[in-house]
Amino acid sequence: MTPTLQLAFDLIRRRSVTPEDAGCMDQMIERLEKIGFKVTKLRRGDTDNFWAVRNGQSIGPLLAFAGHTDVVPSGPEENWSSPPFEPQIRDNFLYGRGAADMKGSLAAMVVACEEFIHQHPDHSGRIAFLITSDEEGPAINGTVKVVEWLEEQGEKIDCCIVGEPSSSERVGDIIKNGRRGSLGLELKVFGVQGHVAYPHLAENPIHNLAPALAELAAEEWDQGNQFFPATSFQVSNINGGTGATNVIPGEVDLLCNWRFSTESTAEELEARARAILDKYNLKYEANFNLSGHPFLTAEGPLVHAVEQAIQKITGKETELSTAGGTSDGRFIAPTGAQVVELGPVNATIHKVDERVKADDLDILKEIYREVLRELLT
Amino acid sequence: MTPTLQLAFDLIRRRSVTPEDAGCMDQMIERLEKIGFKVTKLRRGDTDNFWAVRNGQSIGPLLAFAGHTDVVPSGPEENWSSPPFEPQIRDNFLYGRGAADMKGSLAAMVVACEEFIHQHPDHSGRIAFLITSDEEGPAINGTVKVVEWLEEQGEKIDCCIVGEPSSSERVGDIIKNGRRGSLGLELKVFGVQGHVAYPHLAENPIHNLAPALAELAAEEWDQGNQFFPATSFQVSNINGGTGATNVIPGEVDLLCNWRFSTESTAEELEARARAILDKYNLKYEANFNLSGHPFLTAEGPLVHAVEQAIQKITGKETELSTAGGTSDGRFIAPTGAQVVELGPVNATIHKVDERVKADDLDILKEIYREVLRELLT
Repeated sequence: MTPTLQLAFDLIRRRSVTPEDAGCMDQMIERLEKIGFKVTKLRRGDTDNFWAVRNGQSIGPLLAFAGHTDVVPSGPEENWSSPPFEPQIRDNFLYGRGAADMKGSLAAMVVACEEFIHQHPDHSGRIAFLITSDEEGPAINGTVKVVEWLEEQGEKIDCCIVGEPSSSERVGDIIKNGRRGSLGLELKVFGVQGHVAYPHLAENPIHNLAPALAELAAEEWDQGNQFFPATSFQVSNINGGTGATNVIPGEVDLLCNWRFSTESTAEELEARARAILDKYNLKYEANFNLSGHPFLTAEGPLVHAVEQAIQKITGKETELSTAGGTSDGRFIAPTGAQVVELGPVNATIHKVDERVKADDLDILKEIYREVLRELLT
Repeated sequence: MTPTLQLAFDLIRRRSVTPEDAGCMDQMIERLEKIGFKVTKLRRGDTDNFWAVRNGQSIGPLLAFAGHTDVVPSGPEENWSSPPFEPQIRDNFLYGRGAADMKGSLAAMVVACEEFIHQHPDHSGRIAFLITSDEEGPAINGTVKVVEWLEEQGEKIDCCIVGEPSSSERVGDIIKNGRRGSLGLELKVFGVQGHVAYPHLAENPIHNLAPALAELAAEEWDQGNQFFPATSFQVSNINGGTGATNVIPGEVDLLCNWRFSTESTAEELEARARAILDKYNLKYEANFNLSGHPFLTAEGPLVHAVEQAIQKITGKETELSTAGGTSDGRFIAPTGAQVVELGPVNATIHKVDERVKADDLDILKEIYREVLRELLT
């Protein structure tokens, strides 16, 4: 078994169901300290985090690897073909919760650094790790808090590789060089409750809402750009009514969400939504909640280095994408860092029998090592 | 205490919470048989019903009194100022569950017939009672079944007085000479469930529904007529979503209701609603449920007799109205009968401390007796 697979095994064996770390960080820290990293543990609330940094011998960028040791729950273990926290290699696949998301990436990062530092002990710049145990949870006490702490220290990340499983068919076929923003809306529209037989004494909030909702659903918020699809608006939940068939309800509640491109800001979206609600004279309460600014790392040193490394190791082109859900990159990019997500194939993440091709973790390790070489030598 | 009040007391004492009759009918039947009525008991399912008829001495209309012995539950008895099933007169009001809806009317009907037959033993036409114990419940085994039975017997009601509490401020100020129809709709609109981050892989049924809902809510179904307000459409309940904020739901469910005038039919309303849903290419299931055709008894012998009787007994004009909820008149009117609802003041029905002015029950008895005299002598 390769060192990368061995470390992935050791990490998967630890039941680090979010927000538990279950000793994963200590194992990583032991390895990193051996190769000259200085480690700061940053426990916040129920969450373990650490920041590790190794200074090079000359001026150069700070390249950070970011990731999380926590995993989503396994669900009923009997549904798995092998126990989720007992890693196994079968048919050239490594099975186990976290194999793809993202203990395999963590192992590849650590081993890549070990190999790189062995080959280039006098590298330039700095190498860092930003590791949390709450990425799969509420994301309150994790990367956000480490980034705050870094700002207090006057520390600034130049380039960041997030180990999220970005790949689709083979390692490195897709990297995420940005993510859409996410803006939530809790909307409550008020009417006047009454009996359906006496509608003139009531005011139906569902009826009042309907044309505004039609306009919100039909609105073109923007057209996106070369990196982002157009901003999309979705109502995820709508609930109104007492259950009785003869009562006009007094209010109706909606949960809505925008996934938005860099062509729109949260402030603009909120203002436009309010303008539509106001146009129909609705009586409403609207609570907007920004859970992530959009970020974009356009062509530049990091994207270039990653593209080059993937080309060199796999012989294939990579595709830039900003599709999909949120990741902790949303907290790091606003500091001005270039951020790219690069990790294994994501087909089985969060599912039963999560797995990754065993060989892929060493390919990923090679790519990470090659990025280090591109940027820090 | 007058005979009307005495009988109202006796009926209120019986805990005939729907669909229980609790012996009310036997008490009425005993009184009616004494004055020459022939009684047929018609128990259907969990419901007691009876039909009683007294033939007069010459040709004339069949005038039926219709009503129910069941009452709605009292709610917590400690909230009443006197026990709901222990009738009391205080400050000239008769208190008790059913005092207004509608044991007071039943007492007035029976005593009116006793007095009328005593004065006019050789009346023309026929007098009948159509009494059920499920008016306050699902209305499945009550008046509907008696009407079916009457049709099997070849029996036809010409004029019918339903004892529902129609009055607003004083006895007889309002009579109901019709009711709007009631058409229900259970609507389920289908989409394709998915993640809000990947809207192109999903289809949001709330969004698809919105413009159709706006059109349904804005539709002018008809303008009503001299007897009916315009048909109204109301959504009473709307529910869609999994609770999660990041999931586009696969379907959305609505409960809707039309209260409709004689200017529209249930078939027309259904066709127009389907046309709107189809126009927006919705994938949906729609279950329409007609719970009552509208009915109208325009000016004619019954309305005239009732107006005259109210004028004679109270010295006041009466107002014709078709407002408000449904009543068992909806089952009787389609047989071709003229139907009018005439009963006491409805301010406290279905409420705690249900009550009726003690004197009003005898005024009501006088009016009923006067209608008998107008139509059957």
